[in-house]
Amino acid sequence: MSNKLKIIPLGGLGEVGKNMMAYEFDGQILVVDAGLMFPENDMIGVDYIIPDFEYLYDKSHQVVGIIITHGHEDHIGAIHHVVPRVPAPIFGTQLTLGLVEVKLARNGLASKAELRRINAGESVQIGPFRVEFFHVCHSIPDAVGLGITTPAGLVVHTGDYKFDHTPIDNWPTDYAKLAEFSQRGVDLLLSDSTNAERPGWTPSERVIGPALDEIIKNAPGRVIVATFASLIARMQQVADAAVRHRRKLAFVGTSMVDNAKMARKLGYLLVPDETLVTVETALKLPPEQVVLMCTGSQGEPSSIIGRLSAGTNRQFDLLPTDTVVLSSHPIPGNEETISKTINRMLRLGANVIYDSIAPVHVSGHASQEEQKLMLNLVRPKYFMPIHGELRQLKRHAWLAEQMGLPKENIVVVENGQVVELEDGKLTVGERIPGGYVFVEGGAIGDADPDVMREREQLARSGIFIVNLSIDKYTNRLLENPEIITRGFVSNEDAETLIPLVRKRVIDVIHNGGLDMQKDIVDVVKTYLYNETRRKPMVFVTLTKV
Amino acid sequence: MSNKLKIIPLGGLGEVGKNMMAYEFDGQILVVDAGLMFPENDMIGVDYIIPDFEYLYDKSHQVVGIIITHGHEDHIGAIHHVVPRVPAPIFGTQLTLGLVEVKLARNGLASKAELRRINAGESVQIGPFRVEFFHVCHSIPDAVGLGITTPAGLVVHTGDYKFDHTPIDNWPTDYAKLAEFSQRGVDLLLSDSTNAERPGWTPSERVIGPALDEIIKNAPGRVIVATFASLIARMQQVADAAVRHRRKLAFVGTSMVDNAKMARKLGYLLVPDETLVTVETALKLPPEQVVLMCTGSQGEPSSIIGRLSAGTNRQFDLLPTDTVVLSSHPIPGNEETISKTINRMLRLGANVIYDSIAPVHVSGHASQEEQKLMLNLVRPKYFMPIHGELRQLKRHAWLAEQMGLPKENIVVVENGQVVELEDGKLTVGERIPGGYVFVEGGAIGDADPDVMREREQLARSGIFIVNLSIDKYTNRLLENPEIITRGFVSNEDAETLIPLVRKRVIDVIHNGGLDMQKDIVDVVKTYLYNETRRKPMVFVTLTKV
Repeated sequence: MSNKLKIIPLGGLGEVGKNMMAYEFDGQILVVDAGLMFPENDMIGVDYIIPDFEYLYDKSHQVVGIIITHGHEDHIGAIHHVVPRVPAPIFGTQLTLGLVEVKLARNGLASKAELRRINAGESVQIGPFRVEFFHVCHSIPDAVGLGITTPAGLVVHTGDYKFDHTPIDNWPTDYAKLAEFSQRGVDLLLSDSTNAERPGWTPSERVIGPALDEIIKNAPGRVIVATFASLIARMQQVADAAVRHRRKLAFVGTSMVDNAKMARKLGYLLVPDETLVTVETALKLPPEQVVLMCTGSQGEPSSIIGRLSAGTNRQFDLLPTDTVVLSSHPIPGNEETISKTINRMLRLGANVIYDSIAPVHVSGHASQEEQKLMLNLVRPKYFMPIHGELRQLKRHAWLAEQMGLPKENIVVVENGQVVELEDGKLTVGERIPGGYVFVEGGAIGDADPDVMREREQLARSGIFIVNLSIDKYTNRLLENPEIITRGFVSNEDAETLIPLVRKRVIDVIHNGGLDMQKDIVDVVKTYLYNETRRKPMVFVTLTKV
Repeated sequence: MSNKLKIIPLGGLGEVGKNMMAYEFDGQILVVDAGLMFPENDMIGVDYIIPDFEYLYDKSHQVVGIIITHGHEDHIGAIHHVVPRVPAPIFGTQLTLGLVEVKLARNGLASKAELRRINAGESVQIGPFRVEFFHVCHSIPDAVGLGITTPAGLVVHTGDYKFDHTPIDNWPTDYAKLAEFSQRGVDLLLSDSTNAERPGWTPSERVIGPALDEIIKNAPGRVIVATFASLIARMQQVADAAVRHRRKLAFVGTSMVDNAKMARKLGYLLVPDETLVTVETALKLPPEQVVLMCTGSQGEPSSIIGRLSAGTNRQFDLLPTDTVVLSSHPIPGNEETISKTINRMLRLGANVIYDSIAPVHVSGHASQEEQKLMLNLVRPKYFMPIHGELRQLKRHAWLAEQMGLPKENIVVVENGQVVELEDGKLTVGERIPGGYVFVEGGAIGDADPDVMREREQLARSGIFIVNLSIDKYTNRLLENPEIITRGFVSNEDAETLIPLVRKRVIDVIHNGGLDMQKDIVDVVKTYLYNETRRKPMVFVTLTKV
């Protein structure tokens, strides 16, 4: 039996090991997390992205377990894609499994998976992996990190974490366990790099309380708080402020309502029955007695905040007396959309509060000083930064180097790069193929780079279709060429251009030529470019009759 | 004669009055700035955007002057579009006019405009406007603000500014002039709101010096500094560090080379002849003796940094020993592109330094404490925040309110909204139509919102074209339907789908029907959606013969 542990961050470009990782020992595989990521601006038409776990397809019987570290979308959001493919038990804490259940139920997979509840502090043998779950603070309750022991050594996998000394649920990260690992000797630490570019210490989740309190106390009308549907800690803070100022609270939107319900049922969200109302009830109350909580803090056009800002929400409109609180930080790439959403809501007269105006959001991830503390608590032999793009990983590696960890004991890799721990030595192994899987509507997995490129081309200058029918014997036009354009020039300009193009097409046909279709495409392209400096995709359909 | 001064911020959504403003008194118009803005992520295919100055078209003979406050692109970048339309003298300081000249020359308009050089501290009568130019600090030398006196009163227009006590050119903002205005009594202040969400005081441009010095001193190979081509102050700092560490400096790229040349010629950029080399010479020197300065700090794919990161630069490649310094802050909306560019360069092994790693950039705009100082120095009766989106303007207005300015004396408007100063009273006047003008390739002005929407639609799921020829008497198909798709599904999937679609189209034709074309579109759309969950634009061209 080989003594080798393979560590495999799955997925393509983007945050390393964030959405899914695999640990492989002696032919048995432990999967950690099954999350999604949001598309980048140039991934047109894509709803979300899941890691490419094809690596697991023909090894699915070798998977001994799937651990979900916590209930955020980037860690559980792909679980319904994984469950039908990988028939392994899913391990998680109570709240995490509750949110997994919500997700599976919504995708018609309720009771299709074996859920095994674990508690922080427990140790569970999963195949050859002895996993010690330890509590970490994050912006959702019940998050855990992992100590994974195999004959290859002890690996500590932090998951998303911060060192919050005054968390909302009063349950700090398990320092003692980390110190205990260090006493035993940690061979490898994999640690969250999200905020590796941020100096200092991430503020406690608790600092948001007074800001929310102040806002809800002073708002002249409704308060609409937007955040992620899985930010259970934020729900608690808003609920507490609502209770204090005798307002009713309604959750709006399916995911928010479902998650809140599950979190309340399991005791992770405490809201008195008399405070919680449905949105229908809330809309009938005097505005100054109402707090609504919904999604859309990233300005997504299809979210409630997106629709409110555009005036297209069905159930209710934004009022000039409304106070909107965006209680989240922009996900990189969303800054522009969020800014536009803020401007639109201000234009409608609402008061909009976001993180540069008041402390209505703090990060759930460790900043540099916390990352250093993690390194010093765990004192690993080897260090592998995860959960970040290359820029954050490199920065995290640099921090570790500053602290005296030898450069050769730090390994920075990207997704698909296998790292191997064997006989106390860490080496970089093979690269496995794979990237992202785009999910569009219900379809998954078949949007390839060529298709993306074509879409960009279509978008750049639109299309120009010329449809011709020609007598196959005389090469005479049978009808006036039909021309269709989209996304090219305004209707007005098209009206001027189209007859001129038609004339040129007719000329080409009159002149004959060996490859009439190609000649027409060339003439039309050149003419359009000369007239408009644009290069639409030109299609000529030619019927010879 | 009416005593009314009209203040007109031109352009569409976006930063108010940033790229162009007009002051109108007694039928005579003073234009301030003629800049461009960069397209947003959803403005597909657009190169850049200029303000819609159609308002000036049939009043061009009424324009008595065009003042350019400083030489940055967002203030001079549209000048070559304005000059052919508006035959008025252009006023600016020496460096500003130098950069205007470069821009005009590059667009074949050299000597097509009358350039009138003014100096900070001077007062010039331009039609009914007495304009007092005062020096302001910004990230380019020779920037000015304006005191504009008409019978309607005294208006102070700050332009872009910061209160840098230790600017690179040792020329601080003209506090005395601002105080003097206040003694005379300022009716209206228009002030830069860019950083209205940033607390504190913007650091001095000088703090960058030591950071650049350290980097250039310690870099093992070439140092490549990327910034905007018009950031002349940054050029000076890089040149100084190059001299100190006995490296040669080369500017790379036309705009950088041209601007540096002009700035040197006019004495605003001091680089010893023996330090400055061409890029060709620099590439032949040992890497550790070289500093290159180029554009691309925003990650633009067509810029030198963009090409270096993608490995497609023609003249030279990025080396693993290179140190790349991104000396600028992301323009909102560019964060994702910049991040990708950084990751790509790191992947190539280069060291990349950007503002969260070292202080290699500071803002050129006043932060909140400076904005308050401006308000207290000028003590205006009315206040109108400019140079910002609604969110920044509202924040700037809030700051002024905190300082005791009555709410009713603060006016927040967006572009196109005329504000009128008459008999010591400020009121909001008419709205003039207009928005942005998109510049695509050489073409300007005709990309309208409908076209943008269509492009987005095209990009979302691609196109699907069905071409049919039918016997007009029997309604029989004359040929097998021709099908073309782009940006829809992969070729592989298309090969499976197309015959199935063809079959359904043939069925519709067999069944007849009143509106065959519409029926086919419906059937194809439904079928494609059911099979792929995507909604490409479907076009059916039908020739009846």
